[in-house]
Amino acid sequence: IQFADDMQEFTKFPTKTGRRSLSRSISQSSTDSYSSAASYTDSSDDEVSPREKQQTNSKGSSNFCVKNIKQAEFGRREIEIAEQDMSALISLRKRAQGEKPLAGAKIVGCTHITAQTAVLIETLCALGAQCRWSACNIYSTQNEVAAALAEAGVAVFAWKGESEDDFWWCIDRCVNVDGWQANMILDDGGDLTHWVYKKYPNVFKKIRGIVEESVTGVHRLYQLSKAGKLCVPAMNVNDSVTKQKFDNLYCCRESILDGLKRTTDVMFGGKQVVVCGYGEVGKGCCAALKALGAIVYVTEIDPICALQACMDGFRVVKLSEVIRQVDVVITCTGNKNVVTREHLDRMKNSCIVCNMGHSNTEIDVTSLRTPELTWERVRSQVDHVIWPDGKRVVLLAEGRLLNLSCSTVPTFVLSITATTQALALIELYNAPEGRYKQDVYLLPKKMDEYVASLHLPSFDAHLTELTDDQAKYLGLNKNGPFKPNYYR
Amino acid sequence: IQFADDMQEFTKFPTKTGRRSLSRSISQSSTDSYSSAASYTDSSDDEVSPREKQQTNSKGSSNFCVKNIKQAEFGRREIEIAEQDMSALISLRKRAQGEKPLAGAKIVGCTHITAQTAVLIETLCALGAQCRWSACNIYSTQNEVAAALAEAGVAVFAWKGESEDDFWWCIDRCVNVDGWQANMILDDGGDLTHWVYKKYPNVFKKIRGIVEESVTGVHRLYQLSKAGKLCVPAMNVNDSVTKQKFDNLYCCRESILDGLKRTTDVMFGGKQVVVCGYGEVGKGCCAALKALGAIVYVTEIDPICALQACMDGFRVVKLSEVIRQVDVVITCTGNKNVVTREHLDRMKNSCIVCNMGHSNTEIDVTSLRTPELTWERVRSQVDHVIWPDGKRVVLLAEGRLLNLSCSTVPTFVLSITATTQALALIELYNAPEGRYKQDVYLLPKKMDEYVASLHLPSFDAHLTELTDDQAKYLGLNKNGPFKPNYYR
Amino acid sequence: IQFADDMQEFTKFPTKTGRRSLSRSISQSSTDSYSSAASYTDSSDDEVSPREKQQTNSKGSSNFCVKNIKQAEFGRREIEIAEQDMSALISLRKRAQGEKPLAGAKIVGCTHITAQTAVLIETLCALGAQCRWSACNIYSTQNEVAAALAEAGVAVFAWKGESEDDFWWCIDRCVNVDGWQANMILDDGGDLTHWVYKKYPNVFKKIRGIVEESVTGVHRLYQLSKAGKLCVPAMNVNDSVTKQKFDNLYCCRESILDGLKRTTDVMFGGKQVVVCGYGEVGKGCCAALKALGAIVYVTEIDPICALQACMDGFRVVKLSEVIRQVDVVITCTGNKNVVTREHLDRMKNSCIVCNMGHSNTEIDVTSLRTPELTWERVRSQVDHVIWPDGKRVVLLAEGRLLNLSCSTVPTFVLSITATTQALALIELYNAPEGRYKQDVYLLPKKMDEYVASLHLPSFDAHLTELTDDQAKYLGLNKNGPFKPNYYR
Amino acid sequence: IQFADDMQEFTKFPTKTGRRSLSRSISQSSTDSYSSAASYTDSSDDEVSPREKQQTNSKGSSNFCVKNIKQAEFGRREIEIAEQDMSALISLRKRAQGEKPLAGAKIVGCTHITAQTAVLIETLCALGAQCRWSACNIYSTQNEVAAALAEAGVAVFAWKGESEDDFWWCIDRCVNVDGWQANMILDDGGDLTHWVYKKYPNVFKKIRGIVEESVTGVHRLYQLSKAGKLCVPAMNVNDSVTKQKFDNLYCCRESILDGLKRTTDVMFGGKQVVVCGYGEVGKGCCAALKALGAIVYVTEIDPICALQACMDGFRVVKLSEVIRQVDVVITCTGNKNVVTREHLDRMKNSCIVCNMGHSNTEIDVTSLRTPELTWERVRSQVDHVIWPDGKRVVLLAEGRLLNLSCSTVPTFVLSITATTQALALIELYNAPEGRYKQDVYLLPKKMDEYVASLHLPSFDAHLTELTDDQAKYLGLNKNGPFKPNYYR
Repeated sequence: IQFADDMQEFTKFPTKTGRRSLSRSISQSSTDSYSSAASYTDSSDDEVSPREKQQTNSKGSSNFCVKNIKQAEFGRREIEIAEQDMSALISLRKRAQGEKPLAGAKIVGCTHITAQTAVLIETLCALGAQCRWSACNIYSTQNEVAAALAEAGVAVFAWKGESEDDFWWCIDRCVNVDGWQANMILDDGGDLTHWVYKKYPNVFKKIRGIVEESVTGVHRLYQLSKAGKLCVPAMNVNDSVTKQKFDNLYCCRESILDGLKRTTDVMFGGKQVVVCGYGEVGKGCCAALKALGAIVYVTEIDPICALQACMDGFRVVKLSEVIRQVDVVITCTGNKNVVTREHLDRMKNSCIVCNMGHSNTEIDVTSLRTPELTWERVRSQVDHVIWPDGKRVVLLAEGRLLNLSCSTVPTFVLSITATTQALALIELYNAPEGRYKQDVYLLPKKMDEYVASLHLPSFDAHLTELTDDQAKYLGLNKNGPFKPNYYR
Repeated sequence: IQFADDMQEFTKFPTKTGRRSLSRSISQSSTDSYSSAASYTDSSDDEVSPREKQQTNSKGSSNFCVKNIKQAEFGRREIEIAEQDMSALISLRKRAQGEKPLAGAKIVGCTHITAQTAVLIETLCALGAQCRWSACNIYSTQNEVAAALAEAGVAVFAWKGESEDDFWWCIDRCVNVDGWQANMILDDGGDLTHWVYKKYPNVFKKIRGIVEESVTGVHRLYQLSKAGKLCVPAMNVNDSVTKQKFDNLYCCRESILDGLKRTTDVMFGGKQVVVCGYGEVGKGCCAALKALGAIVYVTEIDPICALQACMDGFRVVKLSEVIRQVDVVITCTGNKNVVTREHLDRMKNSCIVCNMGHSNTEIDVTSLRTPELTWERVRSQVDHVIWPDGKRVVLLAEGRLLNLSCSTVPTFVLSITATTQALALIELYNAPEGRYKQDVYLLPKKMDEYVASLHLPSFDAHLTELTDDQAKYLGLNKNGPFKPNYYR
Repeated sequence: IQFADDMQEFTKFPTKTGRRSLSRSISQSSTDSYSSAASYTDSSDDEVSPREKQQTNSKGSSNFCVKNIKQAEFGRREIEIAEQDMSALISLRKRAQGEKPLAGAKIVGCTHITAQTAVLIETLCALGAQCRWSACNIYSTQNEVAAALAEAGVAVFAWKGESEDDFWWCIDRCVNVDGWQANMILDDGGDLTHWVYKKYPNVFKKIRGIVEESVTGVHRLYQLSKAGKLCVPAMNVNDSVTKQKFDNLYCCRESILDGLKRTTDVMFGGKQVVVCGYGEVGKGCCAALKALGAIVYVTEIDPICALQACMDGFRVVKLSEVIRQVDVVITCTGNKNVVTREHLDRMKNSCIVCNMGHSNTEIDVTSLRTPELTWERVRSQVDHVIWPDGKRVVLLAEGRLLNLSCSTVPTFVLSITATTQALALIELYNAPEGRYKQDVYLLPKKMDEYVASLHLPSFDAHLTELTDDQAKYLGLNKNGPFKPNYYR
Repeated sequence: IQFADDMQEFTKFPTKTGRRSLSRSISQSSTDSYSSAASYTDSSDDEVSPREKQQTNSKGSSNFCVKNIKQAEFGRREIEIAEQDMSALISLRKRAQGEKPLAGAKIVGCTHITAQTAVLIETLCALGAQCRWSACNIYSTQNEVAAALAEAGVAVFAWKGESEDDFWWCIDRCVNVDGWQANMILDDGGDLTHWVYKKYPNVFKKIRGIVEESVTGVHRLYQLSKAGKLCVPAMNVNDSVTKQKFDNLYCCRESILDGLKRTTDVMFGGKQVVVCGYGEVGKGCCAALKALGAIVYVTEIDPICALQACMDGFRVVKLSEVIRQVDVVITCTGNKNVVTREHLDRMKNSCIVCNMGHSNTEIDVTSLRTPELTWERVRSQVDHVIWPDGKRVVLLAEGRLLNLSCSTVPTFVLSITATTQALALIELYNAPEGRYKQDVYLLPKKMDEYVASLHLPSFDAHLTELTDDQAKYLGLNKNGPFKPNYYR
C-alpha cells in the first residue's frame, strides 16, 4: 500500500508533532504510545500477527480482526465497568432507542479502542447504526476490549502493537467492503478521513457527515475546507465548550497527581513545582498540586494568563529563575523546547520532569541523547538520566504525555466527549437538507447544554427551571440555550 | 430641563433594572445607592445645594461644582492611596507621556467619581487630554475626591446626593461650554452619550469615539447601531476579557466575605450557604466561602455551569430543597425574583439574604413590604425583617448589590478596567481613518494583553518571551496577541 | 486608692506584655485598646464621669454605674443579636434551669463587657447566681450593653474610657458591698483576683472557686499556687482544648481577612505575605490568606512547626530573606521585637504591618518614634509611617492586636469560651468536698466534650453513638470522655 | 517451635485487631497483607523455600536467609531511590559518623523490610552498630531489598510469603547466635520483644533499651511495665509528635487519593464521600478529597472532633443518613463494625468501600461472606460484591488498610519515623546510668525537634534563631526545646 504520497498535502502545515521522517505519514495520536489504559492481560505468549489468524466469534462470524477473540469476556467486564461512569450514553440509548435516530447510518470509525470508546460504539449500534472500526493509534488498543466488541458483532480491526502497514490495512478493511458503503465518519486524528478522501473519493462524496475530535484532525479539515475540497459537512467536537473546559481543566486536575504518584511515589507536601503554561491544562495541574501542599510557580508568555496565575496565588517566573530549586517541572504549553538542555543541566539532583501538554516536543528530550549522559530505565515509563557528576534527572514517559502514558483519564470526562460525538453524529445524520453546508461546524450551544444535562444525574444535581416570567425577563427560551455561543 | 421624553426610545428594551416609573429615565447605575466608597467625612452640616454656592479653588478657578472645595486635601490623600494600587495607570503616564497621545483630546466623562476614577481622569490629563466630568450615579460621588479634582483644575460637576434635576444639570454643564467642544466620550451607563446624542447632535457627529463600560450602556449602543443611528465608533469595554474574567470573578471572591463581615460579623466556618447562579460572580463567591469553611450549595439553570459546579465540589440543588436549612442566601443570577416571598417564608431564623448579582430584582424585596412583617433597621444597610412568630430574616442593603453597598472593591481590579478605558480612548483617538467604522467594537486582543502586562509588575511577575523559533512553531508574533479573539 | 505596691509581686515574672512603668500595675488586657466591638452610638456628647452621675433604671434601682442607662434598649438588641450565635448558652439555660445549679452562688466578675459576655452573665443569673461585674479593660466596654445589663438588674460597674483609678474603683464596688459576699470569681487577667486576695483576704478564703481565662491571669494563679498562697481551687480555662484549638485557629482564620480589609481594603489575590510564627494563630492566618490567593511565607523558630508549615505548602524563610519583596507582614509569635527597625527600613513602599500575636511587643513600634520618620494617621487604626525618601509603611493598630482592634471576633467562637466558663463555675460550685484542692485545674475532658456537644446543633451536626459492643471494644464509656486528657 | 502458649498473656488485653483463633499469636502487623511496596520482580518461578536453599553473597557469606540473593542489584537501586527522600538519615550518618555513637551496639530488629527500613538499618550500621534483622509481617518483605541487605553484609532473615513457622524461625535466627548477644531491640509490633523476653530471659535482662513504634507493641510494653516485668527501659516512638502529626495526617492526605485511583480510577470531582472518623487520619483524607472537588461528609462520636469537622466545612452526619447517596465510604475510626451489613445493603450501585483506619475490623467484611452475595475479583485488591438484584459494591483490599495495600506511603514521611527510631536507639544506648529506668518513655521533646530539624533541608527551609534577648523574654533556651512536652 502506497500512502506516503497521499499524505503529503496534509503534512505541509506547521505540525506540532515534530515527528521524524519515518512516521511522518501518521498523525500524532497514532504514534504516541498509550500505555496506561492498554491491555490488562499478558499477551506476550502469542507472537502470530492477527492478520494471519483465523478467528471466529461465538456466533460464527469472522468479520473482524483482533488479537485474541478469547479475551472477550475480560474485555466485556471492563466495558461494563466503564458503563457505570458513562451513564449519559446509557441514558441516551434509553431516550433515543424507540426512534432509532441512527437507523440506516453506516458509520466507519477510527479512534482509540478502549473500554470507553466501546461504550460509545455500542451506543451508536443501539441507536440503529452499523459500525466498522479501526484504531487511530498503533499502541492504544485494549486487545480484550476489541475482542469483546468483535464477540458482540462489531466489525473491529485493531490490536495493540500494529505496524504502520497494519494500521492502514485495518482502516482499509473498515472502508473497503463489498455490499456496504459508509455514510458517516467518526475520526480522531484525520487519518481515516484522509484515507477515504484519497482512496475512495466516490464514497467520500456521499458521506453525510464527519465528526472529528482531535486538534490535528480539525486542523486538517479546516485546511481541506479552505482549499475548497471539503465536500461534506463536518463537526469540530474538539472546540466544544464541554471538551475544552472539562476535558482539559478537570481531567488534568485529576490525572497530574495520579501520573506522578504511579511513576515516582513522590510526596507532594512542600515540594516546589514549576508549571510551564497556565492555560486550562496548567490551571488544572496547578490547582491539584497546590491543594495537596506543593509550592507552585508558573511560567507564561501570555500576560492575561499570567495575571490570572497571579490572582490565583502563583508566582509567575521565568523558568531559569527557579530551575535550580524546583523538585518537579511540568510542561503544559503546546510549545516546543520549553525545557531545554540548558535547563536540564541546571536542575538539582532527583528533579522530576514531565509533560502534560499537547505534544512530545515540550521537553527537548533529544538533547539528552548525548554520550556523556547515562540513561537508566528504573521503572516502566521512568528513566533516570545521569550526569557525569552523578546528578540524576527523573524523566517520565520520555517526555510524552504523562496522563496518557502513566495515569488513567477519568471515564466520566471521556463520557462527556463521547456523548458529544454521538450527538454530533445524530445531528449531522438527521439534519434537514441545507442546515449544514460543506464546511466545519461547532456543535450548537443547545446540544452542548444537552450533553451537560445528560451528565448531571451522576451527581444527583437538580437544575432550576426558569419561570415564564423570568424567561421573558431574560429574553431566553426556557429550554435554552442559556448563553451566547461565544460564552466560555 | 425636559429629558423624560428623550429617554423614551432607550427605555423600550427589556431592561434588567426593574426600575419603577419615577426613575425610569435614569440608568440603573444612577439610582443604585453606592455607599461603601462614599464620602469619608461627615458633610451633614451643610445643607446648601452646591449649585447655589460660590466656590473657588486655590488657583482662583471656579470652573467646577462640588460639595465643598475645602475637602480637597483629604480627597487628595485618598487619591494618593488609590494610586498605589493603580500603578498600571501611573506607568502608562510615564510610558506615554513624552508623546502625549491624547494631546488635543477633549474628553467629556460620566462615571462614578471615586478615588479610583480620579486616578484615571488625572492620567488622561497627563496624557494630554482636557477633561470635563460628571457623575453617573446620584449617590456614588466621593465629595472629597471631587473637591481634590476641582482643586487640581479638572472641571468636575458632581456631589453625593444629587437630585435627578441636578444629575442632568451636571451632565449638561460638562457638554455645554462656550469655546470648548468635546471630541471624545467616556461613559458608564449611557446617560451622557444619550444626552449628547439628543441635545447636541452637532457635537455628537464630530465625536471621534465613545468608550462605554456598563452592560446597560453597551446595550444602548448596540441598539443605536442596529437602528443605524450610531454615527461614531464606540468601544465596548464591558465585554473585554480583562473586565469579565477579573472584575467579576476575583472582585467577588474578594468582596463577598468583606460585605458579609462588615454588615453581620457572621462566622463563615461551618455555615450552610446557597449561592444562586454559578457564572463568574457565583464562582467567585463560592470559592471564597468554601475556602473559609462554609458548606456551599449552588442553584443553576444552565446545565454547563451546573456541571462545572459539580466538578468544583458543590451540590447543585433547587433553592426550595435547601431553603429551610441554610444560614445564608446569595443571589448572583442577573435574573429577577430568584428569591421569592415563599422562599423567605420558609427560611430559618437569622438567615442572611443578600444580592451580588446585576440588579436589585433578584430578591423579591417588594414582597416583604406587607403589614404582617416588621422591618427593623439594626445597622446601616442591615434590616431585620420580622415574621409574626418572631422569626427574623437578615436582609442586606435592601437587596441591592452587596459589594457596592457594604464592602469595598479592590482598587487593583478597578485599575484593570480603568486602564482598559484609557487605552480604548487612546486607540480610538489615534486610529487611522477607516480602522473603526460607525459601529461597536471590542478592544483588540493585543491591547487587552497590554492592559494585563501593565499590571504584572505589581506582582513582580516575570513573563517568558518566545524565541524566534518557538514563535514560528506556534505561528505567533513574539509580541502577541497570543490567543485568538474568542479565547476566554 | 493605693494599689501599686500590692501588685508588685505579680509583676516579677517575666511578662510578655512589655508594659512600661506607668501602667505596670494593670494587666495587659486592661490597657490594650479594644475598639472594634466598642460602643456603637456616639457618646461624645457627654463628658460627665459616670461616677458623678445619678442614674436609675426603670425598676428604680441605682445599683450600678454605667455611661448612660438610656442606651439600654440599643444594648438589649445587640445582646439579642449575640444570643443567636450563642445558642449553647441558651440551651444551657434550658437544660439546667430546673435545678438552678448556681442557686446561692454569688459571682463577682471582671471581663470585657460586650454583648457576648452579657449573654454569659445573664446565663449565670438564669442558673441561679447573683452577679456583680466590672470591666477587665478600660477601653473595651460597650456602653450600651452595660446599660442593658444594668436595666436588667445586674450590678455592673463599667464604661468605655475609664481611668486607672476608675478601673480599680469599679472592681472595688463589685467586691465591697454591705450584706453581700462573693463566693465565686470569674476573672480575665487576674486583676480582680488579686484585688480580692490583697484587699479582702477574708472574702478570698471563703471563695469556692476561681475561673480564669487569660494567659496572664493563669500565669499569676500558677505563681500563687507555687508560692503556696492559693487557698482556693481555680480552673484554668485558657488551656482547655476548646479554647486553644477553636479560639486561636478558627478565630484568626476568620478575623485576619476582616481586619486587613476594614483597615486597608487591600486585595488579597497575588499578594506576598509573610506570617511570623506557625502556631495555631499563624496556622489560621496562613490558611485564610492562602485560600484567598495570597502567596504566603512563614518564619519559625521551632523545627516541628516549621516542618508543618512546609508540609502545608508554605516556604519557611528568615524574615530578612523576604522583607524586601512582601506586601504584608503579620506577627503571630508571642515574642518581642520580631519585626525590628531594620526590617521596617527595608520594607517596600506601601507594605502593611500588623500583629495578630499575644502582645504589642512583636513589632518594635517604639523604634519608629524617631524624628526622621513622619507619622500620618490616615484612618482610624491606620498610620502611614513615612520615610525621608517618601516610602510609606502602613502600620495597623499601632502594633496592638489586629483582631481586637480592627475586626470583630465571631460570636460563635466566643460562645465556646463563655460556655466553658459557665461550666467551670458550675463544676467548682457543685463539686463534692475534696474533688478540687487548692490548686489550678484544667476542665475535665468530659466537660470539654460537653461544651463542644452544646455547640453542634448550630451546625445541625449529628453525632454517632457507640454501640455497647463498640464501647467495650474501645474500652470507652459510651458517653465519653472519648480521648485521653493529653489529646489535642 | 511452640509459641502459642507463650503469647497467651499478651493477647488478653482487648485487642483492636479482631484476629481469629488461627492467627491469634501473631500481631496485627504480621498478618496484614502489604502488597503495594511488595516485591517488584516476579518470583513466582521459584517455589523452593528459602530455608532449604544454600545461598552465598558475593563476599562468600551465607549469614542470612532471603528469597534470592541474585535480586540484590535491583534492591540496591530501590534503596538508592529511597535514600533520596531520606536525607535526614544520610545527614545523620554524616554528622554522627566520626564518633560512631552506636559502636558496640548489637541491635536485633523486627520491622517491615522495605527500601526505607533498609536505609535505616544501613544508617545504624554506619553509626557503628551490628544488626540482625527479621520481618514483622509475613507478606511485607521486599525480596529484592532483603537480598541487597544480605549482599551488603546485614544478617537478614526474611522473605515475602513466610509461613507462621517461618516467621518465628526467622526471629529466632536473629536472636539465637553463637558468640553474638543482642543488647538493643528495635521492634514493630512486639513479637520480637516477646520472643526474647520469653525464650531468652538472660539476654532480655541485659538489653540496654527497646524501641517500639507500633500501637500494639507499645500497648504490650505498658502491660509488661504495669505487671512489673519490664526490666529494660523502652522508648515509645509511636506517640512522638512527629509520628502522630506527620505520619497520620500528611501520610493519609497523600495516600488516600493514590489508593483510590490505583484501584478504581475513580474521578474525585463531584463525588459524594463519607469519611468515618475525624482524627488525624480522617482529617488528612477529608482535606485531600475536598481539595480535589469531592463533597465530603463526616461521622464522629467525639463532639470535639465533630466540632472541628464543622468548622472545617464538613457536614457531620450519621452514616445511615447519607449511606444511600454516597459514592465512596472511607473508615478511619480505629473502631470495629463501623460499616455494617445493613449499611452495605443500603449502598447504591458502584459504591466504593475502603478502610484507612487502624485495623481490618472497621468494615464488617465477614457479613458479606453469605451465599446470596457473589464476589468477583476484578483487579488486584478490588472485589465487586454483587447483590441478587445486580447491585455491586466495590470493596478495596478486603477491608484491610488501603494505604498499605493499594498505594505507597511517602518515603519522606517514613524518614521521619525512621530518624526518630535511630535517635531513640542512640539516646537509650548512650544515656548515662539512671536517666532511664525500667519503664516506657517518650522521646524527649528536644530530640523530636532535632528529628524535625534534620528534615527541613529537604524543603530548603530556613529556621529563625532567637536572639539572646528574645530567648530570655520567652524563658527559653535558644536551642530548644521550644514547646512544653504536652504541646501538639
